[in-house]
Amino acid sequence: MTKQEWPAAIMTETEVVTYVKEAFGFFNKDARLVCKEIGDGNLNYVFRVHDEESKQSLIVKQAGPVSRLSDEFVVSPDRNRIETDILRLQGELAPGFVPKVYHYDRDKNCVVMEDLSDYTILRTALLNRQQFPQLAEHLSTFLVETLVSTSDLVLDHKAKKELVKSYTNPELCEITEDLVYTEPFFPHPRNDVFQGTKSFVEKEIWGDRQLALETAKLKFQFLTNAQALLHGDLHTGSIFVTSSETKVIDPEFAFYGPAGYDVGNIIANFIFAYTNSVYTSEGEEAFQHYLLDTIETLVDQFQKKFITAFQEKTTERVAHYEGFLEHYLQSVLEDAVAVVGLELCRRIIGIAKVVDITSIDDSQARSEAEIACLTLGKTFILNRSDYQTGHGIVEAIRGVGSYVSH
Amino acid sequence: MTKQEWPAAIMTETEVVTYVKEAFGFFNKDARLVCKEIGDGNLNYVFRVHDEESKQSLIVKQAGPVSRLSDEFVVSPDRNRIETDILRLQGELAPGFVPKVYHYDRDKNCVVMEDLSDYTILRTALLNRQQFPQLAEHLSTFLVETLVSTSDLVLDHKAKKELVKSYTNPELCEITEDLVYTEPFFPHPRNDVFQGTKSFVEKEIWGDRQLALETAKLKFQFLTNAQALLHGDLHTGSIFVTSSETKVIDPEFAFYGPAGYDVGNIIANFIFAYTNSVYTSEGEEAFQHYLLDTIETLVDQFQKKFITAFQEKTTERVAHYEGFLEHYLQSVLEDAVAVVGLELCRRIIGIAKVVDITSIDDSQARSEAEIACLTLGKTFILNRSDYQTGHGIVEAIRGVGSYVSH
Repeated sequence: MTKQEWPAAIMTETEVVTYVKEAFGFFNKDARLVCKEIGDGNLNYVFRVHDEESKQSLIVKQAGPVSRLSDEFVVSPDRNRIETDILRLQGELAPGFVPKVYHYDRDKNCVVMEDLSDYTILRTALLNRQQFPQLAEHLSTFLVETLVSTSDLVLDHKAKKELVKSYTNPELCEITEDLVYTEPFFPHPRNDVFQGTKSFVEKEIWGDRQLALETAKLKFQFLTNAQALLHGDLHTGSIFVTSSETKVIDPEFAFYGPAGYDVGNIIANFIFAYTNSVYTSEGEEAFQHYLLDTIETLVDQFQKKFITAFQEKTTERVAHYEGFLEHYLQSVLEDAVAVVGLELCRRIIGIAKVVDITSIDDSQARSEAEIACLTLGKTFILNRSDYQTGHGIVEAIRGVGSYVSH
Repeated sequence: MTKQEWPAAIMTETEVVTYVKEAFGFFNKDARLVCKEIGDGNLNYVFRVHDEESKQSLIVKQAGPVSRLSDEFVVSPDRNRIETDILRLQGELAPGFVPKVYHYDRDKNCVVMEDLSDYTILRTALLNRQQFPQLAEHLSTFLVETLVSTSDLVLDHKAKKELVKSYTNPELCEITEDLVYTEPFFPHPRNDVFQGTKSFVEKEIWGDRQLALETAKLKFQFLTNAQALLHGDLHTGSIFVTSSETKVIDPEFAFYGPAGYDVGNIIANFIFAYTNSVYTSEGEEAFQHYLLDTIETLVDQFQKKFITAFQEKTTERVAHYEGFLEHYLQSVLEDAVAVVGLELCRRIIGIAKVVDITSIDDSQARSEAEIACLTLGKTFILNRSDYQTGHGIVEAIRGVGSYVSH
């Protein structure tokens, strides 16, 4: 294999139609297929192919050799293999919560999967103030089923070590190591700090040595703790929803890391949605209550289901010793709270923003929103062992939110 | 490759001579070589080949498909590849402290290496009350150079992840997980408890729930914490010495784990040598003082050299944050102290014994020695964060040793 041969050149829309027809028999041979590149992510080209007559459709996702986020991050095209494997594994562990995979093609470096065009990206839906009553139930199930079953609690330790090897993901981990754990916490040139937030960042984030030390400890934990097979990028842009269904997509950052990472990541992104509502709109108390309730239920249901899964599935004898479950779950929660804090800070300070915050038009409101997120983030990082319930986390969010001046 | 083809059949002594002559040009073609199988380990066949005329010699180490410890542990013959790679790596990181590798042969599944016949196994030498004034200096250097340089402190994180993959060692890790972290702490059928020690074990070890919980936490840390590339089996039987030289051998258990594991393992085995002296001989205060001084110097020099290596070699930016070095080193020491405790217990209770203890002929003395080791081991496991200096560790050892009744 040479660089010229692989990865394959990115297909055109026309080539995708031909490919889908020839590669396998999903559509009728004489179907009139329409194809459109709909990717808005950072790493892949995403083609939607549909047959207007039968209404059948699917997605072809092809990896380019270079991240579309920035030429500085060159990520292995092998990530599509990882993504296919992990979608299949997650589909077994948490049936119905990930898109179905129809086909993986190593030569073309693409994966053909279920089309979720009827779904909305959760981030967008929340910005449109849509509510999904089952979201916390769905996500807590997804998290528990994927995290507990891939850990040394349940898996034979030899089999788990083979999975750690298979899902070693150096390039995409490096992105997280840099963008989440490192750059936001000092004046790195790639950071992008909003003018009105700058003096706060310089004094309260970059000027806080204790905070820096805690981020270093957390970074080393992220680098070394092969606890569970993570999604690795579980924000509201990686979740597709309908009124009754939830699908977690884009697991290309998957690797073995601290279980709390996924839990904290999604909570932080609910906080961004909440912050958007608080700092841009009046009279949305019901929606804000929904979001806080979702966070509280997510944390509490995660713990409840974790305990059940632990009790039902744990095969490791020593994990049944008195006190171990409490110790284990407490440390997962502590890690999760720390990641809430890291994510809250890095999306404000670092290069990769969230539209929940950048779309706040009023400069004053945006700075206040950002400072609220940073204040909360810092608290969660520094005092990460103090939040062991959904109620405690939600009270902390409310506490910061309440100092809004507008 | 089929099972029949690989691993290769174990060679006879005659076949080894032919192999060595033909495989590569270490000896003269017409040299009259003598070969003898000298293995007394558990996992390999070890042939010494020497030329009586030139006095040149070497070792051929061939892996059998099944551990010689017990048919219950089937370990991959691939361990010789791991051993070769790691000896070469350790030889680069800590020059002079491991045997030279001349040749690795995947088909024959053997490695040809420096003959250390002029050396003595450290365990035997200590039982003969020999002293090695530079031992603590040598071992602290070996530990620091191999552990710091393979960690995320120094290595590029992507390169480190590739090493984690290469040195994934499921079967030999399983042996440690079972024999060190699990079986000794409950009445497992494979345990082998000396009659006079049994009631102490039942009450103070198997009857202590807090101890059980701490061993479970430590087992999960061993299962998940890919901190540094360990030797993995660093007891006094894995160290060869002369009056001026120290060679660490048999790294076939090597894998990425908690750095404190190697440190604690060797300290515990010095304690066994100390215990042997205390419980079998009178008037050996000088030798006992030497052993305690070796432990104290080993711990203190490990810390001192660790700090120097950290300061000189660390490439990870966040590790330079104020307080991080102290945090990191403290946690390595804490892990080391816990492993001292685990090793002290498992060699008394579990299947794999040390001759330092089993050779104590007087039953009463042996029980007292064993109970002293278990008492100390339990203290170290339960209070592992309380011992951060060589002096503190040695005082604890002395404290238990002093209640000897004979």
